[in-house]
Amino acid sequence: MKYYIGVDIGGTNIAAGVVDETYTILASDSIPTKAPRSAEEICDDIVALCKNICQKAEVPYDGICGIGAACPGLIKDGVVTFASNLGFENVPFKSILESKSGKRCEVCNDANAAALAEYAAGAGKKYHSLVAVTIGTGVGGGIVLNGRIWEGFNGAGAEIGHLVTVPGGRLCSCGNRGCLEAYCSATALINDTKEAMINNPNSKLWEVSGGIDHVTGKHAFDAADQGDVIAQNVIKRFIKYLSIGVANIITLLQPEVVCIGGGMSKEGDTLIVPLDKLVADNGVIKSLASKPKIKAARLFNDAGIVGAAADIMLDDLG
Amino acid sequence: MKYYIGVDIGGTNIAAGVVDETYTILASDSIPTKAPRSAEEICDDIVALCKNICQKAEVPYDGICGIGAACPGLIKDGVVTFASNLGFENVPFKSILESKSGKRCEVCNDANAAALAEYAAGAGKKYHSLVAVTIGTGVGGGIVLNGRIWEGFNGAGAEIGHLVTVPGGRLCSCGNRGCLEAYCSATALINDTKEAMINNPNSKLWEVSGGIDHVTGKHAFDAADQGDVIAQNVIKRFIKYLSIGVANIITLLQPEVVCIGGGMSKEGDTLIVPLDKLVADNGVIKSLASKPKIKAARLFNDAGIVGAAADIMLDDLG
Repeated sequence: MKYYIGVDIGGTNIAAGVVDETYTILASDSIPTKAPRSAEEICDDIVALCKNICQKAEVPYDGICGIGAACPGLIKDGVVTFASNLGFENVPFKSILESKSGKRCEVCNDANAAALAEYAAGAGKKYHSLVAVTIGTGVGGGIVLNGRIWEGFNGAGAEIGHLVTVPGGRLCSCGNRGCLEAYCSATALINDTKEAMINNPNSKLWEVSGGIDHVTGKHAFDAADQGDVIAQNVIKRFIKYLSIGVANIITLLQPEVVCIGGGMSKEGDTLIVPLDKLVADNGVIKSLASKPKIKAARLFNDAGIVGAAADIMLDDLG
Repeated sequence: MKYYIGVDIGGTNIAAGVVDETYTILASDSIPTKAPRSAEEICDDIVALCKNICQKAEVPYDGICGIGAACPGLIKDGVVTFASNLGFENVPFKSILESKSGKRCEVCNDANAAALAEYAAGAGKKYHSLVAVTIGTGVGGGIVLNGRIWEGFNGAGAEIGHLVTVPGGRLCSCGNRGCLEAYCSATALINDTKEAMINNPNSKLWEVSGGIDHVTGKHAFDAADQGDVIAQNVIKRFIKYLSIGVANIITLLQPEVVCIGGGMSKEGDTLIVPLDKLVADNGVIKSLASKPKIKAARLFNDAGIVGAAADIMLDDLG
């Protein structure tokens, strides 16, 4: 059995895990990122963390075949060209980590790592291509084609949240109008839920959420589930816009799997079944003999570690 | 020098050319398709055509390294799963052509072949990834990533004309509303031009086109060029919608080059410069240090032959 390490570098914490060839995490731990500081200092801490988790996993550090790291930001060919919450600009992270760790290393974007994790060990297991749509504060994603991340020539690909879905529509944080993210992020769903509550004082949403200041992305699903028509309409609209984004991804790429991730994917069939139905109703997709499968993500907090490990592992296995 | 043959199979004619490693067509000829008839009969005629053009090119047929064929329809792994104007359904075209020709063969979709031609020998030469957007009666396209066509897991990828661009918008032939094709095909431009003429009896469009029954996709560009504000508005709207489609392709894939093909690409800078400006104004794209290049296609009638030849040639060169 071969062993790898996946490192998930966030703005607040760095988590790492020893991962075997079956994508099982044998041991993991985390340390504070303490950003902003130099990549050299961060890599020193990562190497110490790696040695520590090797001990926990009872795998000798010498036996580790490679280290994959995932971090937010723009990354191309091992260089973090820009990562605002790490304060990195054009940092050759891969080569710094390689020299500090003495291992072959890879570095990729965290959203791409999550997509690769789903491809290798989650919703896309046994398939050859997958596009992940991750719904959180914003909407992100990753593209895996023939087992490789497609990150775009400049590392900026798969910005799924900024697909213009409603020209001239809602203002997005990027400055555009009508981005998918402005309709289908958890943030947008929360705003829509609040608006529906204000307009409908009798909606169950009030009771389910415990008041306007406590609304989360889950409450509209919960109230809809309890038969609240107002909440059902909020969800219906949310899924309608999501279906346009997913249908456009399919029309362009026809991946074998589209995987919906982020906290909302825990809604499972409540989200996936109506989404699948709307996408299947698309003029072009309707006519396909063989359609992409739409699935909920399976890996959650582990996606960064598993995906980062998969990145170096798949590279290793050719 | 190695020699290959590219075959462009259309509903009416089959064109073939002997192509060298520099993508130069040494000799070409065409025969009628006589569809619908069996793939065996068509392949017999293709082999005779190939031997004929070899004589014209003074290249021995024995010296041909492989034959690539492009045809309309859905194609996956050498099988034409569906091609309405050839009357093919699940025809193992690659293996039939291989057994008839005694050569290694490939078969790909004609829009993908055109994209590969631009990648190998046209607007994408020297770049590593390209998405072609081909504007004709409809809007089609092809995706080339790291020198390979990405046709989707089911062969149905790159249906760029059916990206939903205006939800609830114009009805498209596919049954959807708001497809890019409904706004940015030559057909749509002609309809928009006619409508503008009817609403504006004093527009120069009347003089330039010679009347409503003679309108082509070129007339709005010509009248706009002569300062006709009505025509300028038609073109402005056309390019605005096209820019949404192109920006969405870039947001998702970040190819090194987006190539605009079809008859309209002959407008060159008149089309490309304002398109580029609108795309560059997109919130996400604006912030990129390194942006995809938007270029007009360079290969026209030869794209099918060159692309089909490139398909087998790139496969041969690994």
